[in-house]
Amino acid sequence: MKNLSRRSLSFSLTAACAAAVMLCSASLQAAEVSVAQTSAAAKGTFREWTEVLAIPNDSIVAADIQRNTAWFEQAFQRRGFRTRQLANDGKPMLFAELPGNKAGATTVLFYAHLDGQAVTPSEWQQESPWKPTLKQRNAAGQWEALPIEQLYGANPNPEWRLFGRAAADDKAPIMMMLAAFDALKASGATPSVNVKIILDAEEEKGSPSLGKVIDQNQALLKADLLVVLDGPMHASNLPTLVFGNRGVAQATLKVFGPRQDSHSGHYGNYAANPAQTMARLLASMKDDDGRVTVAGYYDAVKLDDESRRVMRAVPDDEAALRKRLGIAQAEKVGQNYQEAMQYPSLNVRGMQAADVGPKARTIVPGEAIAELDLRTVPETDPQVLLGLLKAHIEKQGFHLVNGKPTDEERARYPKLAALDYARVSASSMAVRTDLASPIGKWLRSAFVKTYGKEPVQIRMMGGTVPTGAMVGALKIPFVIVPLVNADNNQHSANENMRLGNYIDGVQSLTGILTEPFPAK
Amino acid sequence: MKNLSRRSLSFSLTAACAAAVMLCSASLQAAEVSVAQTSAAAKGTFREWTEVLAIPNDSIVAADIQRNTAWFEQAFQRRGFRTRQLANDGKPMLFAELPGNKAGATTVLFYAHLDGQAVTPSEWQQESPWKPTLKQRNAAGQWEALPIEQLYGANPNPEWRLFGRAAADDKAPIMMMLAAFDALKASGATPSVNVKIILDAEEEKGSPSLGKVIDQNQALLKADLLVVLDGPMHASNLPTLVFGNRGVAQATLKVFGPRQDSHSGHYGNYAANPAQTMARLLASMKDDDGRVTVAGYYDAVKLDDESRRVMRAVPDDEAALRKRLGIAQAEKVGQNYQEAMQYPSLNVRGMQAADVGPKARTIVPGEAIAELDLRTVPETDPQVLLGLLKAHIEKQGFHLVNGKPTDEERARYPKLAALDYARVSASSMAVRTDLASPIGKWLRSAFVKTYGKEPVQIRMMGGTVPTGAMVGALKIPFVIVPLVNADNNQHSANENMRLGNYIDGVQSLTGILTEPFPAK
Repeated sequence: MKNLSRRSLSFSLTAACAAAVMLCSASLQAAEVSVAQTSAAAKGTFREWTEVLAIPNDSIVAADIQRNTAWFEQAFQRRGFRTRQLANDGKPMLFAELPGNKAGATTVLFYAHLDGQAVTPSEWQQESPWKPTLKQRNAAGQWEALPIEQLYGANPNPEWRLFGRAAADDKAPIMMMLAAFDALKASGATPSVNVKIILDAEEEKGSPSLGKVIDQNQALLKADLLVVLDGPMHASNLPTLVFGNRGVAQATLKVFGPRQDSHSGHYGNYAANPAQTMARLLASMKDDDGRVTVAGYYDAVKLDDESRRVMRAVPDDEAALRKRLGIAQAEKVGQNYQEAMQYPSLNVRGMQAADVGPKARTIVPGEAIAELDLRTVPETDPQVLLGLLKAHIEKQGFHLVNGKPTDEERARYPKLAALDYARVSASSMAVRTDLASPIGKWLRSAFVKTYGKEPVQIRMMGGTVPTGAMVGALKIPFVIVPLVNADNNQHSANENMRLGNYIDGVQSLTGILTEPFPAK
Repeated sequence: MKNLSRRSLSFSLTAACAAAVMLCSASLQAAEVSVAQTSAAAKGTFREWTEVLAIPNDSIVAADIQRNTAWFEQAFQRRGFRTRQLANDGKPMLFAELPGNKAGATTVLFYAHLDGQAVTPSEWQQESPWKPTLKQRNAAGQWEALPIEQLYGANPNPEWRLFGRAAADDKAPIMMMLAAFDALKASGATPSVNVKIILDAEEEKGSPSLGKVIDQNQALLKADLLVVLDGPMHASNLPTLVFGNRGVAQATLKVFGPRQDSHSGHYGNYAANPAQTMARLLASMKDDDGRVTVAGYYDAVKLDDESRRVMRAVPDDEAALRKRLGIAQAEKVGQNYQEAMQYPSLNVRGMQAADVGPKARTIVPGEAIAELDLRTVPETDPQVLLGLLKAHIEKQGFHLVNGKPTDEERARYPKLAALDYARVSASSMAVRTDLASPIGKWLRSAFVKTYGKEPVQIRMMGGTVPTGAMVGALKIPFVIVPLVNADNNQHSANENMRLGNYIDGVQSLTGILTEPFPAK
């Protein structure tokens, strides 16, 4: 029994979109599961959700990870999944697979992570980050607690939120997946694709061993496509697909002055100040519009008209973004926010020479340090970018040393610097899937059927998530499908999940699971 | 009875100088006191010297200052001085005056300070900084202790040194002054000028109340000339006169980025990085040769040929200086080290944006701070220099705010900065006496008669000493006459005074005291 699943979205649709929906609806393939069924299934998992949120999941504590893995293992087993804990030095990851996967059908590996960010309990406005707390915003705009029993009632308000560490990031998508299978079962539907699931146990630590665990379980994890259930939806709270993420490389730049901090009276105007020299060097790396001037830095990035169109279509409210950031104007790297994220960045994430504030002394500092991060893009290997940076520094007249300069180097070279960096790990590599790829078409089609309109499509997000580790190990196309509200405070205190987004997320997942691949 | 006082200097004279001495000697006025008498008088004070060095003198402890002031008061009284303790909030300064000062004669106020730098006893290679310890350098170049009784023997080696806090800075010159009066008495000579002495009690804390104490005792301290007995001699260890010192002004420069530290992935290439913006701003303030490019910064400094000749004549070993600093080349502010010190400096004494090292995070920092110090010169008021700096920053397109920018300022101005500075106190002002002034001629003449050659003349030293507080309050010409070895570790652990310099200092002071003013 097929039901047309368009419904009154709890996220807002504009009048213009509504018209588009009318036009599209004639050609919509109806999804397998009704809104009532997905909504009921979502609510049916709220009690389990609060149960698993009570288990701490900072992966620094192996025993806590083991409890989470065991809990999710049982939750998947209750729904008929075959499971296996994947050994990972005391912090097991979880693999789950639906029996009855058909040979020859497309296999989709869904990724999510069961670990969470560390917490500072004193910063939380509730008894504990591990005591899930239902809250509503009062007339004054403050969050006030509601009895948790109201979460389990018949009609929880979609605007209510459940607060707790990992309430959103990233236990919510796992719970939504469990609910989506409950909805399928309730409606008698089966997935259109073979389903495999992997739950990472150390994502918040940068997934240091994910690549290795995948390599050790290649046969088990073999799949055609990867769907990453992580990260926040677009700020508009509209259904979102993310086709890539920038990578990140780090480097430490030091500029050397006198051998030791020296009296600024006796040597000011004589011994060059390394903070000043650092300033000149950094200034040489970017123009006044924020564009990197290191030769060749942007060369490999080519944006075609279709990519530009997709980026323009993202409903970013840049005026609101600038207001939130507190900046009058953006750098001019791209024509808009999305376009800026398609280029590698060169960012001074920290800088120091001697001391500031009450500890400042009247000295010429002995050295200046700039910590750099380079957000990288798939077009240019991070080692190439770091090489361009190194060449640029040398072109400015610097002699680069390893560690500290020797006396001989000090006597010989007027400008001394050091640039230290390590090889970038797979989990920090930039990855991107073509917007026009089959996986993109498949997911777009599922969302159009579910919501009657195209999702927000992010060509490449600016931040770095460890997709690279999986893509590097599995060598399959991927898309990130974020399902949690953008304002969920992930990584901070008072993390929360909006109930409406949870319910919508279950519907998104049932839409995806019932969408045939390749998309018709 | 007059004796020609030229003698074998314990500091080295070159052969060239020796020839000059022969030429000069015909016109030399013989000084009043023989080398044998000054030397005997110097040695005669060694026991008192060790006695007073045993009294701690960090001015943070008022009771210790009181003990030092009382000790010196008695020492001056024993030599027939009239004394008065000058009230200073529990940390009395000492005034001493020889009776028999002649009305109408030139009155010279000698300044020294009885307080010392704070100590970290664990850093000292002796039982205590307050247990004066006689040491000699052994064959391996290490300092090894000698029995203190050897200091009081007939022939202490001029290369021996007495270690202890304030052994040099600045109790030695006070002791030398006491010894000089002993030498005058022994030889039946009297000073050629009226003598007044003031001993500061808080010099190492920046003489915060010296100006006030002088103002409260103007009649008592009234004098025609000021001789400051402080600081180290030229590194060559040759007799030295210092005609001025740079002042110091401080400013805190902040550049504002996003309202708070922001994710470098999501906002790198979008929100301008304040560390980068700071780098561009600082880079705009100086050229690659280290010359300040702020308009008008150097305008008032005019160096005439005679000043340049005097500066060239200073026997600086710049190759050795650069080697010690560990720099291949000096900035090109002046043609030599001395000339560089005649210009105001603009120094980044500290700089910070977010964190470096293990605490560094991948963020666009919310702000960057540069702590600046400006070494100032008498030609340009520090407020004028700070005003030029402010104008320069505005010319680079920055809107300057007070404190933090408001939301409205953030929305309006792409470049936001703050420049905070306080009015410069008198003790931090630059002061300089003309090389050709009567006090200069007088002291040069005394040194030529004593040593047979011109002293090293420092037109203006690069550092800041609180001469400005006295000159501002007394409005009389001054010269600094440093008498302690340059390598005395003043302000550090293991401060020491070379005995040869102590003995020479007594001779320098007797030469000055017996030199008629105005110089013939």
